[in-house]
Amino acid sequence: MLIVQKYGGTSVGSIERIKAVAERVVSTIRQGNQVVVVVSAMSGETDKLIGLAKSVSSNPSDREMDVLLSSGERVTTALTAMAIASLGQRSIALTGRQAGIMTDNLHTKAKIEKISPEKIKKSLFEGYCVVLAGFQGITESGDVTTLGRGGSDLSAVAIAAAIKADVCEIYTDVDGVYTADPNIVPNARKLDRVTFEEMLEMASLGAKVLQTRSVEFAIKHNMPIIVRSSFNNNPGTLVTKEDKDMERVVVSGVAYDKNQAKLTVMKVPDKPGIAAKLFSAIAGANINVDVIVQNVSSDGSSADISFTVPKADCNKALQFAEQAAKDLGAKGVAIRDDLAKISIVGVGMRTHSGVAAEMFDALAKHGVNILAISTSEIKISCLIEAKYTELAVRVLHEHFKLDLAN
Amino acid sequence: MLIVQKYGGTSVGSIERIKAVAERVVSTIRQGNQVVVVVSAMSGETDKLIGLAKSVSSNPSDREMDVLLSSGERVTTALTAMAIASLGQRSIALTGRQAGIMTDNLHTKAKIEKISPEKIKKSLFEGYCVVLAGFQGITESGDVTTLGRGGSDLSAVAIAAAIKADVCEIYTDVDGVYTADPNIVPNARKLDRVTFEEMLEMASLGAKVLQTRSVEFAIKHNMPIIVRSSFNNNPGTLVTKEDKDMERVVVSGVAYDKNQAKLTVMKVPDKPGIAAKLFSAIAGANINVDVIVQNVSSDGSSADISFTVPKADCNKALQFAEQAAKDLGAKGVAIRDDLAKISIVGVGMRTHSGVAAEMFDALAKHGVNILAISTSEIKISCLIEAKYTELAVRVLHEHFKLDLAN
Repeated sequence: MLIVQKYGGTSVGSIERIKAVAERVVSTIRQGNQVVVVVSAMSGETDKLIGLAKSVSSNPSDREMDVLLSSGERVTTALTAMAIASLGQRSIALTGRQAGIMTDNLHTKAKIEKISPEKIKKSLFEGYCVVLAGFQGITESGDVTTLGRGGSDLSAVAIAAAIKADVCEIYTDVDGVYTADPNIVPNARKLDRVTFEEMLEMASLGAKVLQTRSVEFAIKHNMPIIVRSSFNNNPGTLVTKEDKDMERVVVSGVAYDKNQAKLTVMKVPDKPGIAAKLFSAIAGANINVDVIVQNVSSDGSSADISFTVPKADCNKALQFAEQAAKDLGAKGVAIRDDLAKISIVGVGMRTHSGVAAEMFDALAKHGVNILAISTSEIKISCLIEAKYTELAVRVLHEHFKLDLAN
Repeated sequence: MLIVQKYGGTSVGSIERIKAVAERVVSTIRQGNQVVVVVSAMSGETDKLIGLAKSVSSNPSDREMDVLLSSGERVTTALTAMAIASLGQRSIALTGRQAGIMTDNLHTKAKIEKISPEKIKKSLFEGYCVVLAGFQGITESGDVTTLGRGGSDLSAVAIAAAIKADVCEIYTDVDGVYTADPNIVPNARKLDRVTFEEMLEMASLGAKVLQTRSVEFAIKHNMPIIVRSSFNNNPGTLVTKEDKDMERVVVSGVAYDKNQAKLTVMKVPDKPGIAAKLFSAIAGANINVDVIVQNVSSDGSSADISFTVPKADCNKALQFAEQAAKDLGAKGVAIRDDLAKISIVGVGMRTHSGVAAEMFDALAKHGVNILAISTSEIKISCLIEAKYTELAVRVLHEHFKLDLAN
């Protein structure tokens, strides 16, 4: 098999960890596989470099930030290749440029536009284990770029797709994808398998195992991913496309996100195009709006429009919302930042009715009030008071019997 | 003026030093100059990276070593560019590749083959201060290379020549080139000016201010160099070609090198081609031979051949010499590693006779025995017992009145 193995910051966080990674890689190769390794910077290194930048400049340019940040993966790439070679396996370290990762020029959060994997393929053909720097690429004009937080996941999946690998293994410090956060639900169960769509919802709902963009990329290229731990030999979780033969699980997991603030623009006159005006102003400021709820008043003349944003963007969103409220003739803007979003995810929801009602009922039974609801085909999210987060996660995990294998 | 300023490891060794460098650069630009900055890695960083490599592999590959080592200059390049920008001066960080530094593929000690400075020139034209990563380049096939210890000096001089700069300023932690090591001779005088040839002899004789290859490059391209301190505003030493109008100094400086071992191949039968055989074997092992002395025996039938090598190469050289001695029918090899080489340098020697005799006499008067002598047009070197090094430096400094400006 042709396997891409991606190792995150904690997996290459020390000399000992790098040696352990090298042993796993070499053992995979000796079982008859070809392996491309993608590594992140040592854990803490990126934050250290950002700290240095902040100490020389209050507003460092994104282009120079990328020259700086891309140094971290060079170090781990070279050290990992050396460690693999010292076990008797030919190995070559490639930078993002050498790996042919071409991006747009949105420095510090660049998007991959094209991959030219000739050098990778040639090296594999010549019997090398290829070790790539994740998180980085290069623009058409030759400038170094980075892909944003968690970008090494994306590098790994994109490379796997480009070289038509059989599977992309993402090594991290947890055993895989769980039915819920094990810190909150002690009997949370590791999932053997989840669909791309479920993984995507979980990732965007706050489960931290895989970066959202990397899952989107995997869907587009139908690249199976295995999430597993680099600290043991447990089999991990397979993330793959929905299998028609497989029984559809109604609820696969419970996710939560405490990083939510809710803004309500009150008594907006109910005219067509009002919501569009409000949200285009906020989108223009590059703020991600999540849940949106609109309640029309009983007489139909006005509406309250509520929406959630990440807490970090709360003040900026408030400015735009207040300006928009003024322009639209609304009464004002109310804000709450003591909220959490709790969600259940499962492909079986498509065909099972009544899941939402069960969720609301389970929460109500334990006195958890729901402030807003948002649904998609395979997930239901409720906005609740943040203090009920852990309780709600446990209630839903138990109600849907997620501790039992389906 | 178009000025290249190179800052060494101690000059960019901390956030405070980087900020001081930025202020000097911006002040130079505000005086109406265009500036290209070349930086080394933070002092200690390269050794730290080598330590990491040694801890994952007993024999790390040179190619991967270069991927690793080249990360150090990326950090200082980006930080310096950011610090300059924060003072209101547009600034851009370029890697060795972006600066167009093409080298051969002798990893960890690559030679510059070509510089394509289009990107540098374009950035200067657009009003940027260009900050370049020293010490690194790229091969034709796109692999990262480094230029060996002190390689940033070479990067700076080569870039200066390629963009036809008016001068190349080398910033370090000393005030310039001295008549002798100030640690040994308290009244050593900073030279306002030395010729390229004198600088070359001094560099290769152990004065540590400028890397030998960078001086050779400066000679070839007639690029004036100013060696000065980044810790003060003293004017430094101008290294330039000999000026016909300038009075020729007989002796400019005294240099010493304690890192010498002497090997003597005894009673080599005196046949043509014998010396060539001996030294081609040693050169093949990449060992630099310095002083060579051959004494033919009184009956002319055999000769003792002595030569010096760096102490680090002593054991390796001994192996080759013993093999050669056997092959040539010599009696054996004797070795001494308690020696130092002491040298006087000055362009005036070309026209002044008797300088060598004065040197030998001054040393003899203080009981310093001379074991071998080697001369060039502008320098005289003597091999002496290492314990006399400091005495000999002081004696020669005083004898030639180097504390007085000529």
